[in-house]
Amino acid sequence: MTSPSGFNYDSFFSAHAPVSNRGGNRNARYDFAVAYPDPETLPLDGLVDALKTALDREGRDLAYYPVPAGLPSLRQLVADKLQRDRNMTVNVDDIVLTSGSGEGISMIIQALTDPGDVVLTEEFVYLGTLRQIRLFGGDVRGVRCDDQGIIPESLEEIIRAAEGEGKRVKYLYTIPAFQNPMGWTMSLERRRRVLDICRERGVPILEDDCYVDLRFEGEDVTSFHSMDDNGQVLYVGSFSKIVAPGMRLGYMVAPQEVRQRAMSFKGGGGVNQFAALAVEEYLRNNMYDHINEQNDALRAKRDAMLASLGENFGDAAKWVKPEGGLYVWLEMPEGTDLASLQEQSFEEGVGYYNGAMFSPEGRGANCARLCYGHPSPQTNYDGVAELARIFERHGVL
Amino acid sequence: MTSPSGFNYDSFFSAHAPVSNRGGNRNARYDFAVAYPDPETLPLDGLVDALKTALDREGRDLAYYPVPAGLPSLRQLVADKLQRDRNMTVNVDDIVLTSGSGEGISMIIQALTDPGDVVLTEEFVYLGTLRQIRLFGGDVRGVRCDDQGIIPESLEEIIRAAEGEGKRVKYLYTIPAFQNPMGWTMSLERRRRVLDICRERGVPILEDDCYVDLRFEGEDVTSFHSMDDNGQVLYVGSFSKIVAPGMRLGYMVAPQEVRQRAMSFKGGGGVNQFAALAVEEYLRNNMYDHINEQNDALRAKRDAMLASLGENFGDAAKWVKPEGGLYVWLEMPEGTDLASLQEQSFEEGVGYYNGAMFSPEGRGANCARLCYGHPSPQTNYDGVAELARIFERHGVL
Repeated sequence: MTSPSGFNYDSFFSAHAPVSNRGGNRNARYDFAVAYPDPETLPLDGLVDALKTALDREGRDLAYYPVPAGLPSLRQLVADKLQRDRNMTVNVDDIVLTSGSGEGISMIIQALTDPGDVVLTEEFVYLGTLRQIRLFGGDVRGVRCDDQGIIPESLEEIIRAAEGEGKRVKYLYTIPAFQNPMGWTMSLERRRRVLDICRERGVPILEDDCYVDLRFEGEDVTSFHSMDDNGQVLYVGSFSKIVAPGMRLGYMVAPQEVRQRAMSFKGGGGVNQFAALAVEEYLRNNMYDHINEQNDALRAKRDAMLASLGENFGDAAKWVKPEGGLYVWLEMPEGTDLASLQEQSFEEGVGYYNGAMFSPEGRGANCARLCYGHPSPQTNYDGVAELARIFERHGVL
Repeated sequence: MTSPSGFNYDSFFSAHAPVSNRGGNRNARYDFAVAYPDPETLPLDGLVDALKTALDREGRDLAYYPVPAGLPSLRQLVADKLQRDRNMTVNVDDIVLTSGSGEGISMIIQALTDPGDVVLTEEFVYLGTLRQIRLFGGDVRGVRCDDQGIIPESLEEIIRAAEGEGKRVKYLYTIPAFQNPMGWTMSLERRRRVLDICRERGVPILEDDCYVDLRFEGEDVTSFHSMDDNGQVLYVGSFSKIVAPGMRLGYMVAPQEVRQRAMSFKGGGGVNQFAALAVEEYLRNNMYDHINEQNDALRAKRDAMLASLGENFGDAAKWVKPEGGLYVWLEMPEGTDLASLQEQSFEEGVGYYNGAMFSPEGRGANCARLCYGHPSPQTNYDGVAELARIFERHGVL
């Protein structure tokens, strides 16, 4: 390939540097593809007021580079929150603020993954994680799940299979609450069994709890991290979902020796001090009120989507009713090809991501992830009806 | 080593994951070690007002994940600024916003560096870059410099030496304006010769122009990028120095095929939208007024440091008088050991970084980088006098 720039870089690129396919975002009229939270409850005024207050108090700190782990007062807020909400006893020094949870995931993946390493995830998994593990050479294998979460027998089997090839499993990545893309929350019983298996086989767990605050019904299930007294669970969380994704603020909790390695892969210094100050000040006074308001909005959006699924898909499809988070996982009969239909559906006005995109093995083209967080309830309702009409027109419903 | 966490991670770490030594920052009474800009001219009120205005106009965008390249209006501002200030004709799409210039440097290093690759830098080089190139296995070699910048004969010699070992040079990293740590600005004549050599030998240049706005006397020298019509110069810049480091905002300019690879290594999604909105709105109305105000403050600080150096070090040391930026490079007679004295000097009240820290080969323990940007002029004056007393007490002056 001749370089359009004149100079030919082809032979200069690292063997490990793939071409990124991260372009801009396109939006369909009814956009269920991309996982945006609710825009109406964004606390814009609250954030600006909070920032003003925080800057009056601490502003000259902006002249300094943030400490690499990020604003100490926000890390304290995270420690308090994790104690209260996730039964986790962690110290300010155990926490690193990151640019969204995505940066924390990437840092841990880089610290732990060598080319060829076997890494386990749920059978459908967050695209960013799948891409990152592969970027650093990991051999990703999906563990079977049902609506209670990871199926323990499948986990045992897949670990044994790897061991049979002379390979150990390097770690298990899981999103146990409001899983992306499948929507379920892993039950306490399943978490216990998964942790037991991982302990027995010496497999660390990377727990991605980035949706856990978005519960609008049912009871919280305690974190993997809280059930482990052995340092075997690494943990990431996020403010993207409860404040705003544009804030790019998340956090990582890990034992010192893991943090020390992971910090080598933190590209841009400590997180944005401006955003950290605003978020700390805002959440210190408003966290649970804001989360409740947001979750009320999300519940109405989910309900509208579920109602429309019932009316328009009926018995022709299956879906889990999520108790929180942003996702409904639509499962059409085996053999339905929603992968081929995806671009056409987008053109005709409804965006979704088909299941095969989330599968390490490329399975699940009969499934689709529908995100209900951003459109209004009415738009969710109408959009699902429109999706049914598109499916009918193309003979899959 | 037994892991303090119980679970033993030793055998889990990637072979490429070193322990990071990035801890918190300590400050000496007179701190010339860390490169902070002036805190007094931080435009805190201006940034909050700008953010308010921008959020009123565009705030709902915070609900969306930023496009990976970052806020388009800020990229447009960068394009306009580069045209006006650096004679660079670039398009909005050529620009990626990054978390400080450090993230851009890291992304490019990862896109281009394979273990064992020979990479050239100035003989003393920014610590973050040195660490990143080594993290990804690069074999860093320093090119000799004088107060006009890179010495062309040394560049040719070092390229030939690598070729003699059967290796080509993968790229040259340079900070041509107010170099970190040496303080000089590369002359136009030298830039022409360096670019000619790199063209002839097919060596891309990574130009780090992060200090270029901090000129308080003399004439601007045009960028490497502006002299190249072949796509051979990659470019990074920063708002850390002209707004605030805590904002964590910088930018990268590169041909499409390089950007596409580099984007694979952008860990946390697009840059913080909150900071990007504030900086765009603020700079659109205040950029040059603010830069001028800040540079007036920096000039006074530099002058105080230079005056004190003259009075307290006289003929016993050499230093370059920088026309901008943040650094004075102090050169004591060959054989002086400022490396061993560094910690002691810190304890006795004056912080500096000795030259060997910045050298790929560990040379230059007789040199020290003195940052004058953060302390007041009086503190610079007093601190240099104190440094001289410490040097005298320990027999190196």
